[in-house]
Amino acid sequence: MNMQIPRRFTVGLIQMSVTTDLEENLKKAVFKIEEAARSGAKVVCLPELFRSQYFCQKEDIKYFDLAEPVPGQTTEALSKAAVKMGVVIIAPIFEHRASGIYHNSAAVIDTDGKITGLYRKMHIPDDPSYYEKFYFTPGDLGFNAFNTHAGRIGTLICWDQWYPEAARLTALCGAVVLFYPTAIGWHPYEKESHGKAQHDAWRTVQRGHAIANGIYVAAVNRVGYERPADGGEGIEFWGSSFIADPQGIIIAEASVEREEILLGEINLDRIEEVRRNWPFLRDRRIDAYAGINRRFIDE
Amino acid sequence: MNMQIPRRFTVGLIQMSVTTDLEENLKKAVFKIEEAARSGAKVVCLPELFRSQYFCQKEDIKYFDLAEPVPGQTTEALSKAAVKMGVVIIAPIFEHRASGIYHNSAAVIDTDGKITGLYRKMHIPDDPSYYEKFYFTPGDLGFNAFNTHAGRIGTLICWDQWYPEAARLTALCGAVVLFYPTAIGWHPYEKESHGKAQHDAWRTVQRGHAIANGIYVAAVNRVGYERPADGGEGIEFWGSSFIADPQGIIIAEASVEREEILLGEINLDRIEEVRRNWPFLRDRRIDAYAGINRRFIDE
Repeated sequence: MNMQIPRRFTVGLIQMSVTTDLEENLKKAVFKIEEAARSGAKVVCLPELFRSQYFCQKEDIKYFDLAEPVPGQTTEALSKAAVKMGVVIIAPIFEHRASGIYHNSAAVIDTDGKITGLYRKMHIPDDPSYYEKFYFTPGDLGFNAFNTHAGRIGTLICWDQWYPEAARLTALCGAVVLFYPTAIGWHPYEKESHGKAQHDAWRTVQRGHAIANGIYVAAVNRVGYERPADGGEGIEFWGSSFIADPQGIIIAEASVEREEILLGEINLDRIEEVRRNWPFLRDRRIDAYAGINRRFIDE
Repeated sequence: MNMQIPRRFTVGLIQMSVTTDLEENLKKAVFKIEEAARSGAKVVCLPELFRSQYFCQKEDIKYFDLAEPVPGQTTEALSKAAVKMGVVIIAPIFEHRASGIYHNSAAVIDTDGKITGLYRKMHIPDDPSYYEKFYFTPGDLGFNAFNTHAGRIGTLICWDQWYPEAARLTALCGAVVLFYPTAIGWHPYEKESHGKAQHDAWRTVQRGHAIANGIYVAAVNRVGYERPADGGEGIEFWGSSFIADPQGIIIAEASVEREEILLGEINLDRIEEVRRNWPFLRDRRIDAYAGINRRFIDE
């Protein structure tokens, strides 16, 4: 790809709530993408699985009906928005790849409307009310970065947030900003006792990825309380979308409960400056990391 | 090793200043180890290169005179203290291994006075006033954990703090607490403009290691302003030794400028609890991390 890469560009994170109406969610997403673009965003990222409420609270095969191919209805609608507004869009999709193979994916749509990259969530959680292992086949595309007209960017998804290897590999692929479309929240019965520590750990580990890799990190979460129609405690999604700079400094942060379009500037000169002053990538001991490929290094 | 491993034990971090008198520094260290032990510490960790002022502010071959073998004078004195007080000691040493091969090392001395482990700093920095590449041959013992009568512990050293791979590998080796003997401070001319961000990034990235690995992290820094006799700006060591629990919560933290013995409890049941609730180790994609062994993944 031969193009002029800008040294600075604005990213827009769409922190939104999601209803049970799939079409309404898509319409809202497009509306907010347009608003973000009008505010100057060149890359816009939506929250994980934004087309529907977070169905992983229950294990029920009927929810596979929500899956769709890539390209498909969602990417087609967002491709139009990308062309219309001249923005790059990171579009989380519940991907129907084949009967029996469904992924938690994110398509990277360039300003020309073409899908320039696809990421399939590699690390799949399984926790009460987050029964993702039931729905999502682990990704097989590995970790990567994608060229767009705004710059070279990477995306991971939610649970990947807790894995330094995923951030490192995406950074080594040359991404200047690492997006994390996310759906994370509090179990209502835990919020009082553990909520603050959980949220702080989530924020801290991602700031750590920014610092260790000298890269921008942009996490995009949904907001609102979602409770399955057939019962359950529900999840209170904690919003708090944020952008950290290559030294881990928070340059923009959203509220816990409101829909917001969060804007922040990516500055390649800042990356250059931070990595010159803190040359962590220079001193890596690539001869000594082989054990990373092991589950546990037993005595 | 067949022994009863306690489920809880206290660690003591010796945050101290260092003078130009090597013997005085050793005496002070022993004195403080005894004080920490009397306060209940079962594992005591000293700051990086505690025997001398931080000579890496200059490149001068005369400083190789400071290097000593392992075992040697320092480990012998500390072995005595370990036996006397019944404590495990993490003893940073400027190690003379052979003519022309010097390491920035840490010996792990068990309660019986024996050296049960040796770590040689793997990641070697080189920065104005931190000219470590001149002095220290990169370590060749890799990342490990060591059995002691207090438990299975790991140590890395200072610059290693910025490398998630080092923390991950030490955790995979079964360490329940990861020590970082450290010598980090502010360039006086940068403190005003960058000091807060630098300190916060240092703390954050290490808390991130605790979170990603469900492990205790204990960082032990020196305090005081040190300026080489033959001039230079000097370094204002920032103290701030701390202990983070397996969820990254700071359970003890020292001041920026005072000598302190920082105590904190390591609780194996807490590790078990955190890792059950946040099973990050379960979901690692060990099939997909091979690129970690590359400098950069060029397009």
